[in-house]
Amino acid sequence: MQYATYDNTIKKLAQHHITVTDIAQIAYDNEQSYVAGLTLAQVEAAVESILHKRVVQHQVWVGLELDRLAEEHLLEAPLQDLVEHDDGLFGVDETIGTAIAMSFDTIGVTNYGYIDKLKVGLVGELDRKGKTSEAVTTFADDIVGALAAAAASKVAHKFAAGMVENQSRIRN
Amino acid sequence: MQYATYDNTIKKLAQHHITVTDIAQIAYDNEQSYVAGLTLAQVEAAVESILHKRVVQHQVWVGLELDRLAEEHLLEAPLQDLVEHDDGLFGVDETIGTAIAMSFDTIGVTNYGYIDKLKVGLVGELDRKGKTSEAVTTFADDIVGALAAAAASKVAHKFAAGMVENQSRIRN
Amino acid sequence: MQYATYDNTIKKLAQHHITVTDIAQIAYDNEQSYVAGLTLAQVEAAVESILHKRVVQHQVWVGLELDRLAEEHLLEAPLQDLVEHDDGLFGVDETIGTAIAMSFDTIGVTNYGYIDKLKVGLVGELDRKGKTSEAVTTFADDIVGALAAAAASKVAHKFAAGMVENQSRIRN
Amino acid sequence: MQYATYDNTIKKLAQHHITVTDIAQIAYDNEQSYVAGLTLAQVEAAVESILHKRVVQHQVWVGLELDRLAEEHLLEAPLQDLVEHDDGLFGVDETIGTAIAMSFDTIGVTNYGYIDKLKVGLVGELDRKGKTSEAVTTFADDIVGALAAAAASKVAHKFAAGMVENQSRIRN
Ligand SMILES: [Ca+2]
Ligand SMILES: [Ca+2]
Ligand SMILES: [Ca+2]
Ligand SMILES: [Ca+2]
Repeated sequence: MQYATYDNTIKKLAQHHITVTDIAQIAYDNEQSYVAGLTLAQVEAAVESILHKRVVQHQVWVGLELDRLAEEHLLEAPLQDLVEHDDGLFGVDETIGTAIAMSFDTIGVTNYGYIDKLKVGLVGELDRKGKTSEAVTTFADDIVGALAAAAASKVAHKFAAGMVENQSRIRN
Repeated sequence: MQYATYDNTIKKLAQHHITVTDIAQIAYDNEQSYVAGLTLAQVEAAVESILHKRVVQHQVWVGLELDRLAEEHLLEAPLQDLVEHDDGLFGVDETIGTAIAMSFDTIGVTNYGYIDKLKVGLVGELDRKGKTSEAVTTFADDIVGALAAAAASKVAHKFAAGMVENQSRIRN
Repeated sequence: MQYATYDNTIKKLAQHHITVTDIAQIAYDNEQSYVAGLTLAQVEAAVESILHKRVVQHQVWVGLELDRLAEEHLLEAPLQDLVEHDDGLFGVDETIGTAIAMSFDTIGVTNYGYIDKLKVGLVGELDRKGKTSEAVTTFADDIVGALAAAAASKVAHKFAAGMVENQSRIRN
Repeated sequence: MQYATYDNTIKKLAQHHITVTDIAQIAYDNEQSYVAGLTLAQVEAAVESILHKRVVQHQVWVGLELDRLAEEHLLEAPLQDLVEHDDGLFGVDETIGTAIAMSFDTIGVTNYGYIDKLKVGLVGELDRKGKTSEAVTTFADDIVGALAAAAASKVAHKFAAGMVENQSRIRN
């Protein structure tokens, strides 16, 4: 019996051309104007920490496997067509994305929606790749956007926690 | 390009030995003590109406395909093992179930949790089948429980609507 | 015993300066490039239909009451401060928004996140009003954004349904 | 500006007669048959850790404030009536509960539904109290059930993590 691990999830992401740095870059661009002195390395650490959660690993595995299976034409119709052609009304990729974005907290959900619609960074690259090549990226773009959103949310909470602590120290 | 339809979803459910009547029976047992004069046929109509929603059809298709693919050993490890052995900490079947249960409203979610944990009716049969045969029913049981919960919720709302109307008629 | 109705929900929204037309305008701007010949009146009908759902009415009532109670300083600290000052890490307004956006389907969630972050139309006006006056709009902006997202999603599904029907008619 | 903290959340819970031990007892009863040697103290630690999450604190504060406001007749009709009489179709208490249950992961959602429907332990006490006294416990019972479900899920994951580590150590 094999289990999902941080290592096999990172390897699976790499097979779909997704790196921690690319995910972190989206989250960094989202948060840098709010968090003074934020570094990309800090955001990468947040992405890594999120990818250590078993729940997130399971969602990533399901999503990327569905992309792979569609690419290899192993799904039954109509699911094959819906995933292969990234049908505009197919929403299970967003169900998976929402579950990942919520794994940190609800604030992740609006970040995820924003990143997904504006096709920021790697999300846009994956979307274009899905439209212009044989590659299927129907789930991949949502996974990247949701991981970035969860990381942005984690960074925002961590920074704010610092602020609150400082304030209460000043008040006392 | 093929799309999900009510007909191909019913057919897919049948291939996994799931019928509208079995789903309706669970919802009927759940609601009959609250709704005087409720008939199984009324609950079957609720299940059918829910299965006409495209969003629900997509969730059903994804879940049942993942069961089939695990049965045919077409998933990559570790996902193959997690789905095939219905790992207790694998939660994507519950993500799909929750999305279906929420497709009617939030009250569906608690009904779904209850049906899922108590393994009511066909949910229990599918669970036992998954544990005692080569069949994989990791997603199937959650799909059945969630559809039953959504139907129970729909019946409850419809009945209450009638009551409210009656009351306001009496008051006037 | 009074119940939530379409009429008392519309009246409550009006007290918070929110109209069906303003909500519909956001959804219309979102969908008009995808749906040829879409009219504002069609989107208004979608918003009205969503506001007829009891589940949605309940979420609207809770959110707008929390804004009103904060405005009248009737909440206990720290909740009073969190809602009154629209704290960036307070996420319950987004929980309510997500529940509304999901009431149609998951595709609503990403639309909602996008509208919320970009502060489109009335969402932006409410946000500015909350920041520059005594008015509290912490929940109001999310309610507007989520209703617009649900309406956009409903319009998209309806239109696509038409397309699918046409295609299958052509195919036959 | 005051913020939600672990301490003020614990105090708020106590005002509604909810203790960490009562919540932990429900989770303990749920998990003890799966986790050999589990102690109540371990589950209490899990509940405390969940109550340290800011997102959870916010949900608790909103829910319990709505109960208090209904008790003091400070809500506008129809929301006053819906919360005061714990209307069977009012679902916002379940929206809040689901958000808390999901704060650990999706497996929490089915546990929450089960605990909520069967009215286990303090959940049942709160429900009866709401029905037989002037006290309003519409949100309180869902908050308790959801915190217990999240704690049960946390315990299950932690224990399994141990198992997996042990297995891989044996395998090597
Ligand atoms: Ca996608
Ligand atoms: Ca299952
Ligand atoms: Ca807001
Ligand atoms: Ca309740």
